[in-house]
Amino acid sequence: MAASGFPPPGTRAEVEEGAAFTPRFGADGLVTALAVDAVTGEILMLAHMNRDALARTIETGEAWYWSRSRGELWHKGATSGQIQTVVEMRVDCDQDALLLRVRVGGDGGCCHTGRRSCFYRTVAADPGTGAVRLVPADPPRPSTHP
Amino acid sequence: MAASGFPPPGTRAEVEEGAAFTPRFGADGLVTALAVDAVTGEILMLAHMNRDALARTIETGEAWYWSRSRGELWHKGATSGQIQTVVEMRVDCDQDALLLRVRVGGDGGCCHTGRRSCFYRTVAADPGTGAVRLVPADPPRPSTHP
Repeated sequence: MAASGFPPPGTRAEVEEGAAFTPRFGADGLVTALAVDAVTGEILMLAHMNRDALARTIETGEAWYWSRSRGELWHKGATSGQIQTVVEMRVDCDQDALLLRVRVGGDGGCCHTGRRSCFYRTVAADPGTGAVRLVPADPPRPSTHP
Repeated sequence: MAASGFPPPGTRAEVEEGAAFTPRFGADGLVTALAVDAVTGEILMLAHMNRDALARTIETGEAWYWSRSRGELWHKGATSGQIQTVVEMRVDCDQDALLLRVRVGGDGGCCHTGRRSCFYRTVAADPGTGAVRLVPADPPRPSTHP
């Protein structure tokens, strides 16, 4: 599929109930993409794709993103080995968000900090003072739910 | 917590490894927020929060978002009854995305189309032609993984 091959969104009914994949790229040219471990169900990372990254993901079956910090296409795992093989891709009701169920290569990790998931901290509010701080999140539990 | 009460991000090490909650709002004033069913593990929706919505979510323990389409604060479930009670909130490595594990009130649904989840369609590519279309996603399986 050419990078320009995604048709523009149609009517609301078409977008929400139709069979046409018409991803709604934002003003910045990006859609949000969530990666979930297809084996454990663990939520791994939230990133973004432009048209080219999305087209490459569909063509290759591996996750490509647009790195906003580096301003470049990003083949996830190309240097780390943490390739994300796409088992399933879903789109949400208004087609501006993607959900990827992936099998992770290499050491099975995802986050550049070395953790498996980027969501490794819980936002904890003190019931008394209301003060908020971050604490380590519980490790994921075994699951049968991809 | 006042809506202006979130301190600005510090150094990269502070953002990634510190205990201070310093959400990184984008140029549009928003952070991305993902809601997951705390009981079933089902991924429900992806939405956005501005400072005020995030502050109200922390204060009330119920999910508030910023509706980009309506341009207003959105107390999820206020009209539908599908209130999202926050069981846990996590933040990602660079603190520009939130993960909310929620218990859903009302009929347990989330999507305005009437489905439980907004991610009700799979992006399916024809292996021969490469043509892409949307097909109904498999229903979620029972899970022990919140």
